[in-house]
Amino acid sequence: MNPVIGFVLGSKNDLPQLEGAEAFLKEAQVPYEIRIISAHRTPERAREYAQSAPARGLRLLVGVAGMAAHLSGVLAATAQIPVLGVPASGGPLEGFDALLSTVQMPAGVPVATFAIGKAGATNAAVFACQVLALSDADLGQRIRDIRASQARKVERDDEETKGTRGTAT
Amino acid sequence: MNPVIGFVLGSKNDLPQLEGAEAFLKEAQVPYEIRIISAHRTPERAREYAQSAPARGLRLLVGVAGMAAHLSGVLAATAQIPVLGVPASGGPLEGFDALLSTVQMPAGVPVATFAIGKAGATNAAVFACQVLALSDADLGQRIRDIRASQARKVERDDEETKGTRGTAT
Amino acid sequence: MNPVIGFVLGSKNDLPQLEGAEAFLKEAQVPYEIRIISAHRTPERAREYAQSAPARGLRLLVGVAGMAAHLSGVLAATAQIPVLGVPASGGPLEGFDALLSTVQMPAGVPVATFAIGKAGATNAAVFACQVLALSDADLGQRIRDIRASQARKVERDDEETKGTRGTAT
Amino acid sequence: MNPVIGFVLGSKNDLPQLEGAEAFLKEAQVPYEIRIISAHRTPERAREYAQSAPARGLRLLVGVAGMAAHLSGVLAATAQIPVLGVPASGGPLEGFDALLSTVQMPAGVPVATFAIGKAGATNAAVFACQVLALSDADLGQRIRDIRASQARKVERDDEETKGTRGTAT
Amino acid sequence: MNPVIGFVLGSKNDLPQLEGAEAFLKEAQVPYEIRIISAHRTPERAREYAQSAPARGLRLLVGVAGMAAHLSGVLAATAQIPVLGVPASGGPLEGFDALLSTVQMPAGVPVATFAIGKAGATNAAVFACQVLALSDADLGQRIRDIRASQARKVERDDEETKGTRGTAT
Amino acid sequence: MNPVIGFVLGSKNDLPQLEGAEAFLKEAQVPYEIRIISAHRTPERAREYAQSAPARGLRLLVGVAGMAAHLSGVLAATAQIPVLGVPASGGPLEGFDALLSTVQMPAGVPVATFAIGKAGATNAAVFACQVLALSDADLGQRIRDIRASQARKVERDDEETKGTRGTAT
Amino acid sequence: MNPVIGFVLGSKNDLPQLEGAEAFLKEAQVPYEIRIISAHRTPERAREYAQSAPARGLRLLVGVAGMAAHLSGVLAATAQIPVLGVPASGGPLEGFDALLSTVQMPAGVPVATFAIGKAGATNAAVFACQVLALSDADLGQRIRDIRASQARKVERDDEETKGTRGTAT
Amino acid sequence: MNPVIGFVLGSKNDLPQLEGAEAFLKEAQVPYEIRIISAHRTPERAREYAQSAPARGLRLLVGVAGMAAHLSGVLAATAQIPVLGVPASGGPLEGFDALLSTVQMPAGVPVATFAIGKAGATNAAVFACQVLALSDADLGQRIRDIRASQARKVERDDEETKGTRGTAT
Repeated sequence: MNPVIGFVLGSKNDLPQLEGAEAFLKEAQVPYEIRIISAHRTPERAREYAQSAPARGLRLLVGVAGMAAHLSGVLAATAQIPVLGVPASGGPLEGFDALLSTVQMPAGVPVATFAIGKAGATNAAVFACQVLALSDADLGQRIRDIRASQARKVERDDEETKGTRGTAT
Repeated sequence: MNPVIGFVLGSKNDLPQLEGAEAFLKEAQVPYEIRIISAHRTPERAREYAQSAPARGLRLLVGVAGMAAHLSGVLAATAQIPVLGVPASGGPLEGFDALLSTVQMPAGVPVATFAIGKAGATNAAVFACQVLALSDADLGQRIRDIRASQARKVERDDEETKGTRGTAT
Repeated sequence: MNPVIGFVLGSKNDLPQLEGAEAFLKEAQVPYEIRIISAHRTPERAREYAQSAPARGLRLLVGVAGMAAHLSGVLAATAQIPVLGVPASGGPLEGFDALLSTVQMPAGVPVATFAIGKAGATNAAVFACQVLALSDADLGQRIRDIRASQARKVERDDEETKGTRGTAT
Repeated sequence: MNPVIGFVLGSKNDLPQLEGAEAFLKEAQVPYEIRIISAHRTPERAREYAQSAPARGLRLLVGVAGMAAHLSGVLAATAQIPVLGVPASGGPLEGFDALLSTVQMPAGVPVATFAIGKAGATNAAVFACQVLALSDADLGQRIRDIRASQARKVERDDEETKGTRGTAT
Repeated sequence: MNPVIGFVLGSKNDLPQLEGAEAFLKEAQVPYEIRIISAHRTPERAREYAQSAPARGLRLLVGVAGMAAHLSGVLAATAQIPVLGVPASGGPLEGFDALLSTVQMPAGVPVATFAIGKAGATNAAVFACQVLALSDADLGQRIRDIRASQARKVERDDEETKGTRGTAT
Repeated sequence: MNPVIGFVLGSKNDLPQLEGAEAFLKEAQVPYEIRIISAHRTPERAREYAQSAPARGLRLLVGVAGMAAHLSGVLAATAQIPVLGVPASGGPLEGFDALLSTVQMPAGVPVATFAIGKAGATNAAVFACQVLALSDADLGQRIRDIRASQARKVERDDEETKGTRGTAT
Repeated sequence: MNPVIGFVLGSKNDLPQLEGAEAFLKEAQVPYEIRIISAHRTPERAREYAQSAPARGLRLLVGVAGMAAHLSGVLAATAQIPVLGVPASGGPLEGFDALLSTVQMPAGVPVATFAIGKAGATNAAVFACQVLALSDADLGQRIRDIRASQARKVERDDEETKGTRGTAT
Repeated sequence: MNPVIGFVLGSKNDLPQLEGAEAFLKEAQVPYEIRIISAHRTPERAREYAQSAPARGLRLLVGVAGMAAHLSGVLAATAQIPVLGVPASGGPLEGFDALLSTVQMPAGVPVATFAIGKAGATNAAVFACQVLALSDADLGQRIRDIRASQARKVERDDEETKGTRGTAT
């Protein structure tokens, strides 16, 4: 199967931030690809990737970058498909700079932004699947199954905790 | 036509922040609705709205709320369609609290977040249309036309400015 | 004895942040319970817990959650008893996001908020006991005893320090 | 009736921030008093007020102060009843300094903190009533009535908005 | 004379922020041009402008943009001449987002950043002239003259103030 | 009488921020002078002023500057008398940049820093008088009188407020 | 010799932050004392200490406290000698909360504030000596000697670095 | 060859932050020197260095300092050549204080500022070379070669990643 979600990372160092995202996509059986493209060092490649994305079967792009994170905005300026943005954690400001650089896009060129770091990358993957599920009922069911299993995990944690903490005085 | 995008505002006072969003949706010919539902004062209604959204033909929800903005997260916890979030501007922290409350969702329940205030609301509208355009080529063309006209506006501003400023010394 | 304070944690990982809170409650002889309930993954359970709390004998709820911490607000939207909120520490923003997401509640649905992390959880426990002591003179005395013993600890630290530092030149 | 809630303001200039708080307390029929006492200019008076509060029939204190807001902490160091804190808005940092100075109390001496400015003052009033309602069923009913009426206000706003905005394309 | 400094603004609305910059450049007799080019709406034009800049005689570029300010970074990714960046003031975060988006460039693609708003735009102009003065001794003298006249202005302010304030008791 | 406190302002525009400081010094009968000297535009004059200060009878210097406020640090690097620093309010960051630039001095060269803007300038004046009062008992008495009169002002505000607000239900 | 500077720490845990301060005072031969007194747990003791300080020969007080650091403000409300404040580092906000809680004192009750943590504690010690040196020429000379030796240390670092880095290409 | 870029560090401890900068300059074959000069401890030396820089053949200065980083501003007040500033990372605020202290220079005395820490120091080096390349075509070519090699590195990372991650479902 061809990938339908394209993750674009500004640096290879940010690969570990995709851990949860990749796990989710595998469980949801949604094909994706990961590319390392720098908005500043390989701007031509960023543009070409964004332009050719629909023709290659990609439905959504996810930019993952840190510091003054321009990558998602650069993708969004060119791509005709939705662009999600994940502020990479790290650096002296811990990704806070990347958050503002990603989310505060001026009107007209949206980047759908998620939390800093791993949590955000995972949520970008989940959200992308929710978009794809608008026209794929089976995927919708798989997402619901995963979320139900996550809810059961919280419920199990709750049962275990209840048994061992508090109450007794 | 039935609305396909549902804007949910935490307070009637935030209606002016949708100005640009409504203008864009009218130009893109995408039907939407606006509801005033409080995550904290009318939580039942928030839940019902999120649950019944797909059956009513809605494809995406957009929460718009300020301060400790929980509205989008509450919608996302219930809805089975994608949820976008716009941090409303205003209050002593100017919407910075709403930004963190909207974007920093823990892994598993995504809210696609946009900029604080009007710019963010407009971008949520544009992004929602980009998602809808994944299965609506005509809408895709209309979005491209609007963006092209916005680009021409920048070019006209450029021409005018060039004629009157700088260079001569 | 039935628990009168209900701690609700968004994640089992936040349990260590209750260390000081549990120690205080044990010393004050106030029964409590700890539950793991996610505002986003198990929203129904959060609601049911908040609704049934008074009937189960609980007098106050304490939400403990991180990042875009909606848990306390969701409890406060449903519960008819006072809700306290503790922003969990951790994450790239170190709980600063959780602080704003917990304290900046819009008018009408209060969450009494305490400091980020362990200090805040302890203070939520102390404060809950102060509320209970409004109708329990014995508990009031126990709280005063604990605070007196804490004051003596500071005084002992003072004595020890005086003996070994400064003055000599 | 004797006041049961004591608001303590660091400065007369902060009186307008109590507007919503006073309206709520009048509707809830809960007697309160407002005092102007400075933690720094009249520290003796602050201490005396906190010490004598229970004997005078007060059940909760609410400190309202701006900038390096020490008032609530000073009250909490002395009072044997619960102390709530409201960071006053205003000043070059818009009350952000007051928020951190109020909420980040070290373990052992809690101040239950609410949002910056008017919203926070109103919520302190609502929360104080929730505490009082733990032993006053009639007050509990009045609070529920006020909240129900606030919910209906949101619902009316919703109805009005639905009739005039969105949908038509 | 051909312009040697190219100011690129992301929006016509930011033109007033150049007031001090233009005044300085006129006094220093350095020809410049002002263009309105959006990194996101007219990305091709941004690239072409950056690429053709040296051939057109430009020695330095100055990007001026607000919010998630990517303009200077996009210019820097393409241009072979030095790129300066000015975070435009305005928006709910008052240009703080633009500051981080401009200055926190990852290693390898520098943007020399100046203060938010007018002060920063003026300083970008002064700095650009300092660079040009490295190979233009006459310009160096003019800059020194302007700075000397600014120093005299401070000295006059000092004389006037000394005469009317303080001392007498 | 010769001035014993020297206020140094980076810009004439900051003069109004001294309003409360001047009023206090006049009431305390402490002679002072106000100078306009820029750390960056007239660095020589800043150095000379700091060096000659003791010989001219000055006992303390107060630097008042905004943005990247280096003035107090520059004075402190040269002067052999204590240097106080007041971050001027104003600019897009409202004096927050000036606060960090003034207070975060590295070890060895202290600047005693006060609050942003008017409140800080007044407090610098009060503190300077407290230092002078270490060797001037009469001044100590005058400071205590002024503080007592400020305390009475708070007490009068308290009396007035008690008479008209709260309690009645 | 009796101590002339009184350091007051809110917690014994903050003792290591005085390392540089103690070293400086020993070198300057200025006697000091260190006390552990909590503004919130032992408020009476804080007051008594501040009140009795002048009679015991103390000339300046230095409060060192973290989080919502009220200690210096509480000392300043009572003491008739100058009060310096050092925001202790540590906690999830790394002392940023303590900085705002210490420096943003409202007009009338000054706390001379220094940098967060060790650097600030050292600078408080240096500044206190500068104040004492106003009436102690020998101490003034010792301070100048220490600073001269620190300058020589920088110069030696400079010499060493020059010999081994840069230049060669 | 004589150095043409002068790095000035406020402290020897900041030397490791130049790692990437030195590597770039060696590759670009641009001679530089590194000096340790403190704006506060050795202000005379700072001034002399800035004044004599052009005569010694230096074309640009780069100040690297942390906390309340005044070094670059002090250099800029004296030097007649362009001054770049790098906020050193470290300290409780992780260089955020240094960033604002460096970049927010008031109008008239520019410091071209780069990112906090290593990335910023590297970019200052690159930018300085870009300025030198305005009159040195060979250097311009070397810079382009380095950047091309960096782009190829990103492309290789991209190839490697493509082969091992994503796509397979």
